[in-house]
Amino acid sequence: MGEFELIRRYFLPLAGQGKSRSLILGPGDDCAIQRIPAGRDLVFSVDTLVEGVHFPKYYRPDYLGWRALAAAASDLAAMGADPECFTLALTLPAADEQWLAGFAEGLRAASDAFGLALAGGDTTSGPLTLTLQVHGTVDEGTAIRRTGARPGDLVAVSGTLGDAGAALEYLAEPAPTPDMAAMLDRYHRPRPRLELGRSVRGFASAAIDVSDGLLADLGHILQASGVGASLDSARLPVSPSLARLKGDASVAHALRSGDDYELCLTFPEDRWGAMPESVKRQLSVIGVIQAEAGLYLDGTDCSAGGTPSGFDHFRGKG
Amino acid sequence: MGEFELIRRYFLPLAGQGKSRSLILGPGDDCAIQRIPAGRDLVFSVDTLVEGVHFPKYYRPDYLGWRALAAAASDLAAMGADPECFTLALTLPAADEQWLAGFAEGLRAASDAFGLALAGGDTTSGPLTLTLQVHGTVDEGTAIRRTGARPGDLVAVSGTLGDAGAALEYLAEPAPTPDMAAMLDRYHRPRPRLELGRSVRGFASAAIDVSDGLLADLGHILQASGVGASLDSARLPVSPSLARLKGDASVAHALRSGDDYELCLTFPEDRWGAMPESVKRQLSVIGVIQAEAGLYLDGTDCSAGGTPSGFDHFRGKG
Repeated sequence: MGEFELIRRYFLPLAGQGKSRSLILGPGDDCAIQRIPAGRDLVFSVDTLVEGVHFPKYYRPDYLGWRALAAAASDLAAMGADPECFTLALTLPAADEQWLAGFAEGLRAASDAFGLALAGGDTTSGPLTLTLQVHGTVDEGTAIRRTGARPGDLVAVSGTLGDAGAALEYLAEPAPTPDMAAMLDRYHRPRPRLELGRSVRGFASAAIDVSDGLLADLGHILQASGVGASLDSARLPVSPSLARLKGDASVAHALRSGDDYELCLTFPEDRWGAMPESVKRQLSVIGVIQAEAGLYLDGTDCSAGGTPSGFDHFRGKG
Repeated sequence: MGEFELIRRYFLPLAGQGKSRSLILGPGDDCAIQRIPAGRDLVFSVDTLVEGVHFPKYYRPDYLGWRALAAAASDLAAMGADPECFTLALTLPAADEQWLAGFAEGLRAASDAFGLALAGGDTTSGPLTLTLQVHGTVDEGTAIRRTGARPGDLVAVSGTLGDAGAALEYLAEPAPTPDMAAMLDRYHRPRPRLELGRSVRGFASAAIDVSDGLLADLGHILQASGVGASLDSARLPVSPSLARLKGDASVAHALRSGDDYELCLTFPEDRWGAMPESVKRQLSVIGVIQAEAGLYLDGTDCSAGGTPSGFDHFRGKG
């Protein structure tokens, strides 16, 4: 099956231009066309996933389709953006129809769930690699950047941390317990915080999604904003399943594991106070921004020159 | 050297937000931000290049940087768009500084030449693969699509065809003649027809860039527009160098070779007549659009079911 037939059969059904208010020409021409409403900004982000690096070899194609779009969409959540559309550059060793059908099914489910229409793409032959670019929109000037954290701001995270990272140990488990299954679900079916991201627009001073681990990602906010932070390890949100599986070591997972796709946010105290309870309930306050550089956990500076490797001593914690 | 340092050292100098009027936030946050002026449409296209498939192994990195952006920008030319910015997803087997310096240099030269600022990207570890997405803008509703060709429209192409494809035979030539060197320059340093694309906006009824070969790419216009075409092989623009190197076989190159990144356009006759001479001079009229399906060359239908393989009998022509 040739490239064009491939695209037609498996990906054109995802185009659904109606899904995006702004996409006025989808796949099939030299370019796609988006008409951004006056007073709105376009925000966009690109993410690559390589087999054997970002996902295991022989990974289930429907999980891959979902995860690839979820990981990309998480960057829109971190800007507080409304999702619009995406492009898919798919490099495949062979046109395996069964694989493609599964991949397209996972991608379609994510496309529907996140409200992202396929705008265009490119299919090439080579080692399995995916690059997705997601497009969203926000009211002019309201995108939440990494640069806005100020001393005194509260540091908060959504959901629970460490689950997806813990799942890596159970990927080959033939009979996962319910707790393991809960971890695996977080890894295979991440749910980017798009709704929450939109809800905190106008309240949060800075935001990032937790893809590389809380310490690394919060570190990016601190560096971009020129500030430091103090965290309280007892306030880190850990799921009951992770706590049962990992005991005290769950704190290390919550600090270092990636792939959770939760949001890490900062809020001026008065803006936090002004937020609806329904939004606050989705967040845990874990610390405070300070003027002094460094990332302090329970009073100990663990920024060690600002590199994530400085946190290695947490690996064995507990 | 880590991912972040890599990006900073070699790619941040390309960000130059000032290059694009619409790019208001470049690399370094979860997303880039573009503010499209009211009354303008965003057009965008994504292209992947895989080592060993789209370019030879051990290909010179500065050529690769230029070619990758040129190939992507050519899709903007085919829509008649003004270039704005691009994203780069770069998958690399290793962080080889010498390679990166060369690649960034070629990319920078192309970025300057085409007026495309780096908006964001992702650097990952894996087999050498590049995915570039280019963004341009046009006045609302004026992008040139593939669907607008109508019976009686003239078919025209820019520049000369077949040169880049012929160069493939000379890539390893230790002492290329001046004619071979001319072919090689077309292959290594393609120049997308951005200026010409903008000039024909409002005149051309359909457009595509010649990346896969004239017959294949014109075939896409015919299919999208629901029409056929008759071409005159004697009117195909062939460079003197290609004619000297290939003799009568140069026609087959002009019909089938890819990588030239010229434009194939259709024009209603009155719109053609209304165009400035300075624009017409860059184009060769090679045929006419007809209502009847099929792609006729010198009176012989060579569409053979619409697949490019139907043109195989031209390989030996001459």
